[in-house]
Amino acid sequence: MESRGRLKGIFTPNIVPLDRQGEIAEGELRRYVDWLIAHGVHGLYPNGSTGEFTRFTPEERKRIIEIIADQTAGRVPILAGAAEANTRETIRACEYYYELGVRAVAIVSPFYYRLTSEGVYAYFKEIADHSPIDITLYNIPLFASPIDVPTVKRLAAECPRVVAIKDSSGDLPHMMRMIAEVRPMRPEFSFLTGWDAALMPMLLIGCDGGTNATSGVVPEITRRLYDLTIEGRIDDARDLQYRLLPLFDTMLYSAEFPEGFRAALKLRGFEPGRGRQPQSEIQQLALQKLADQLQCLLAAEGFTSEPIAGCGVRPAVDPSQVARIVRQVMSELQAKG
Amino acid sequence: MESRGRLKGIFTPNIVPLDRQGEIAEGELRRYVDWLIAHGVHGLYPNGSTGEFTRFTPEERKRIIEIIADQTAGRVPILAGAAEANTRETIRACEYYYELGVRAVAIVSPFYYRLTSEGVYAYFKEIADHSPIDITLYNIPLFASPIDVPTVKRLAAECPRVVAIKDSSGDLPHMMRMIAEVRPMRPEFSFLTGWDAALMPMLLIGCDGGTNATSGVVPEITRRLYDLTIEGRIDDARDLQYRLLPLFDTMLYSAEFPEGFRAALKLRGFEPGRGRQPQSEIQQLALQKLADQLQCLLAAEGFTSEPIAGCGVRPAVDPSQVARIVRQVMSELQAKG
Amino acid sequence: MESRGRLKGIFTPNIVPLDRQGEIAEGELRRYVDWLIAHGVHGLYPNGSTGEFTRFTPEERKRIIEIIADQTAGRVPILAGAAEANTRETIRACEYYYELGVRAVAIVSPFYYRLTSEGVYAYFKEIADHSPIDITLYNIPLFASPIDVPTVKRLAAECPRVVAIKDSSGDLPHMMRMIAEVRPMRPEFSFLTGWDAALMPMLLIGCDGGTNATSGVVPEITRRLYDLTIEGRIDDARDLQYRLLPLFDTMLYSAEFPEGFRAALKLRGFEPGRGRQPQSEIQQLALQKLADQLQCLLAAEGFTSEPIAGCGVRPAVDPSQVARIVRQVMSELQAKG
Amino acid sequence: MESRGRLKGIFTPNIVPLDRQGEIAEGELRRYVDWLIAHGVHGLYPNGSTGEFTRFTPEERKRIIEIIADQTAGRVPILAGAAEANTRETIRACEYYYELGVRAVAIVSPFYYRLTSEGVYAYFKEIADHSPIDITLYNIPLFASPIDVPTVKRLAAECPRVVAIKDSSGDLPHMMRMIAEVRPMRPEFSFLTGWDAALMPMLLIGCDGGTNATSGVVPEITRRLYDLTIEGRIDDARDLQYRLLPLFDTMLYSAEFPEGFRAALKLRGFEPGRGRQPQSEIQQLALQKLADQLQCLLAAEGFTSEPIAGCGVRPAVDPSQVARIVRQVMSELQAKG
Repeated sequence: MESRGRLKGIFTPNIVPLDRQGEIAEGELRRYVDWLIAHGVHGLYPNGSTGEFTRFTPEERKRIIEIIADQTAGRVPILAGAAEANTRETIRACEYYYELGVRAVAIVSPFYYRLTSEGVYAYFKEIADHSPIDITLYNIPLFASPIDVPTVKRLAAECPRVVAIKDSSGDLPHMMRMIAEVRPMRPEFSFLTGWDAALMPMLLIGCDGGTNATSGVVPEITRRLYDLTIEGRIDDARDLQYRLLPLFDTMLYSAEFPEGFRAALKLRGFEPGRGRQPQSEIQQLALQKLADQLQCLLAAEGFTSEPIAGCGVRPAVDPSQVARIVRQVMSELQAKG
Repeated sequence: MESRGRLKGIFTPNIVPLDRQGEIAEGELRRYVDWLIAHGVHGLYPNGSTGEFTRFTPEERKRIIEIIADQTAGRVPILAGAAEANTRETIRACEYYYELGVRAVAIVSPFYYRLTSEGVYAYFKEIADHSPIDITLYNIPLFASPIDVPTVKRLAAECPRVVAIKDSSGDLPHMMRMIAEVRPMRPEFSFLTGWDAALMPMLLIGCDGGTNATSGVVPEITRRLYDLTIEGRIDDARDLQYRLLPLFDTMLYSAEFPEGFRAALKLRGFEPGRGRQPQSEIQQLALQKLADQLQCLLAAEGFTSEPIAGCGVRPAVDPSQVARIVRQVMSELQAKG
Repeated sequence: MESRGRLKGIFTPNIVPLDRQGEIAEGELRRYVDWLIAHGVHGLYPNGSTGEFTRFTPEERKRIIEIIADQTAGRVPILAGAAEANTRETIRACEYYYELGVRAVAIVSPFYYRLTSEGVYAYFKEIADHSPIDITLYNIPLFASPIDVPTVKRLAAECPRVVAIKDSSGDLPHMMRMIAEVRPMRPEFSFLTGWDAALMPMLLIGCDGGTNATSGVVPEITRRLYDLTIEGRIDDARDLQYRLLPLFDTMLYSAEFPEGFRAALKLRGFEPGRGRQPQSEIQQLALQKLADQLQCLLAAEGFTSEPIAGCGVRPAVDPSQVARIVRQVMSELQAKG
Repeated sequence: MESRGRLKGIFTPNIVPLDRQGEIAEGELRRYVDWLIAHGVHGLYPNGSTGEFTRFTPEERKRIIEIIADQTAGRVPILAGAAEANTRETIRACEYYYELGVRAVAIVSPFYYRLTSEGVYAYFKEIADHSPIDITLYNIPLFASPIDVPTVKRLAAECPRVVAIKDSSGDLPHMMRMIAEVRPMRPEFSFLTGWDAALMPMLLIGCDGGTNATSGVVPEITRRLYDLTIEGRIDDARDLQYRLLPLFDTMLYSAEFPEGFRAALKLRGFEPGRGRQPQSEIQQLALQKLADQLQCLLAAEGFTSEPIAGCGVRPAVDPSQVARIVRQVMSELQAKG
């Protein structure tokens, strides 16, 4: 098992490559794990939302963790998504992942039904009281019952096993409120953001890191953004945050999630296969267009060649130019006070 | 297998009783099925939202359908919830339930991820193209990706296997829009409402029936409300709709769904057991209070005795009085034109 | 002044015609008032949302009521929108409209700021305590702070001046909840629906009438729908409700509200002028297309001729056909029980 | 008139003190203006949301600008809220405020009706084409029609008079998207945040300043937060942002907006009077409690004495302690890389 310590840095919520039969492509998954580690991510986060955990069977979810734990072989910590149908099944998953030596589990708040704060509390309390492994709360109000600030505080106070929260709301003051409530009593508690578009400011107000889908596609950028920010190189970090933004937005908003990330992964030399959510003809055509658009964005960063048809029409807004202008405006502001 | 025919009437989305170990209480479930049929429901709808399908494992969901199909033995049609982790698993469930002789399956729109209309269409199209059994679309926008009117129309036009929609939005004009778009081309297509509070008006604008959680607790009322409305006894139906409303509201809004229905079922002489979603101490206390409140409501309808402490303070509003006054006001309106 | 009595029937939230300079077109407004009364509406409701009360100055709002009160000359009751910048100004408007002899005022819940229930209560209480004229609460949660059921009950209990609520949420069980809470203590309290698409079912569960924008364009239909429903001619009423639906939907959803109603009014022979909210070129083109579409819908009802280009392509769904099929399906349901 | 230049720094959306009759308390307003300028705010922003512009009559709104322009006498730039009932009235207000010498106007997106992007565009385009004075778009999606990124871009491209946007969404990536789209073509365009809880990170990603309600109560803190951030003193800025957060949250969320700010202003030695939105007895009691709570928060910052009853029970979370711990955790993170 990993030596325990604060959860920090960039954890990749990895996609699971599928083969032509729609089964887990084990070889490609192992190759992807190696590539991610080689490209600097601090940890892996299988069975997250990007990993489409709900679209796998319970057996497949377990198999995914087995493969990744085996392939990682302790090189980086693993945060394993462990939400199952009910608390009993989830606790069993916690036990199993503990045996596999993962660093901690991440458990999304109950979904489908929208629970009250009391219900969310009772759910996590029950699991935390019986889990042998550290737990990261996973708050993603867009998809699941929200975990509000008082509930995070309550769980942090009562459950030593709860050691972190991953928050994908992208709401900065919300993150600050959680930090303000929890850190004074649990300084080792970790706060991870799942919203890549706000990674730099989230780190600047005190986050420990992120579980960021972009790190599965451009780990070089996400990792460097983390490093620059932690080192206090604000201007350089801001440049990079502005360059990451269109990549993130395009992958996130241009297709049914996480198809945009799958399309981009293919451009980095992996075969993710077709996702399990069927795509209509209209969606398939849109995905082809999106692939070209992504290829141009990735080519601009030097990660791929341009598509055959070229990127003729330059993007209306060039990320580097944006970064340059923002920096210039800010230094003028600074100069004049 | 059931002889095919239009889906109509009241289908009960039944709760699954659990034993002390939290396992399916097969005997109690069988007894409950008999009771429901004896009390007049037109059909059963296991593995619905009230049946907490997401909190069971795939094996348990199959077992629930097996038990109910066996116990029902063709007396009433079964609408089996069949949503699984992905289209392949869902199609397998359709095949299995077909073999068990259920009348049709109901498949909720993809949840957790919020899909676009194209995604919702692609999902149901894939399943409908491979299912041997009739399919009811299940629209519950509060919990799952919404199925909009154009998508219902598209699926009705392209998929003969899609024969009905269950809509739990409670939005009356929305139901009318679906009926207006689909019935001219598919007169046999069924429209079922999952919103008990609007059952009478939904039937009056053309619905074929409902999948109504109240019918699992007070089947006498829900069934009679259906009958009175279909018979055109509007005044009597309205009375009953006003009497059903506080029961529905209390069971639905006073506790984490479907705990209120579970508490009420107990008062009808069944042992539903503790639900799989843990309840905090605060929630447990609230459930005890709710039980008393429900007992008074059920006692007022003659289904139970009053609680030991009595129902001393009469409910601020007495449903029968409300019905009487509404009726009186309306007949005055009518008289004066 | 009108003799007092229950507010009931169809009140038209009338558009205010503007001349080429954008000023109130008094002559056209007077002609419109006469036409509405001649076509059977039970009352007028100037300075409502359809009347764009927020886009007029306080002086203009008063002028509109003066003209309408003068032109109506007691033939039908007037419900005058009286919301001004604050309670003091609103009370002054109440006083003035009282002197003008209008039947009651309608006051929308505070908007822009979203108030809590306590704030909504305090606002109406202050006004009701000082108003010489009867008050209709106006609940339109899409645009203004919602007035929840307990607040309606509280105001009905404490304020004799509050005699009605106009609810534009279109939520049928919500209307039933209000009726159930208020009627037992205030049988003369009126409930009006602002959601034309649900007029028949709203009347069937106990509403007294509606303030319906369609009655400003097709008063013949809206009035007849009211009459048929009150008379208990359910089948005929349902037919008409299905025919009203596409008209309502097209006017409401195909353009920035209330431009669709303005376009339709023009087709009935009035010159509404250009609205005060500017329309972009794209919007103006869309309005021209919409006008043709509306003309076909109105021609199908016999209210206008077809557009010069004809209505070549019949609407995908013919309202009469829909009504006929729904009726047929329902009588089969009834026959078979 | 102010010499033109980039809009930057902290603009105070000032409350308007009222006298016992509920009229504008001119003397107190003038005293407040002097105090704000003396305490370092960069500009004033009358007739904003905090200034309750909707609760004043058009004449009062003009009077407020007259008083403030006169009292300011050019010492700081004025951003005058200029939204009136329609574009014509708004343009007239622009003309009048231009004559009064204010630096620019701020115009909130149309409210009550929720307009589409096209409608929002058409509205601002019409005004911008006829205004003699610079315009700040005001985006506050909680209260008014949202101004989306493409619309900001379109208006920035077509309207030289539009020189800034004030965004109160608090959404950081949204602000970055606007900056990325607009700055390359309009480097002098200003971006102001209205969300005090995110002021530091907003400035760090490129905002020019803010229109922040806290600056009307604790101008010392808001101004210093701006200075520290601009100077790149990140650690000190973060400390202050964490100390500002509970003040902002308490004033914003503990009472009907902006009553919390009014209560706090009183503690700074001004007599704001009773607001125009009536407060129920329950609300008045809550406001008294809130005043004590605010006094303790302000006393902790040295701005007032403690309340007579003392602040006995220390706040569960002490802002300074939070800041200290966050700083410590971050320096450890930095040290270990």
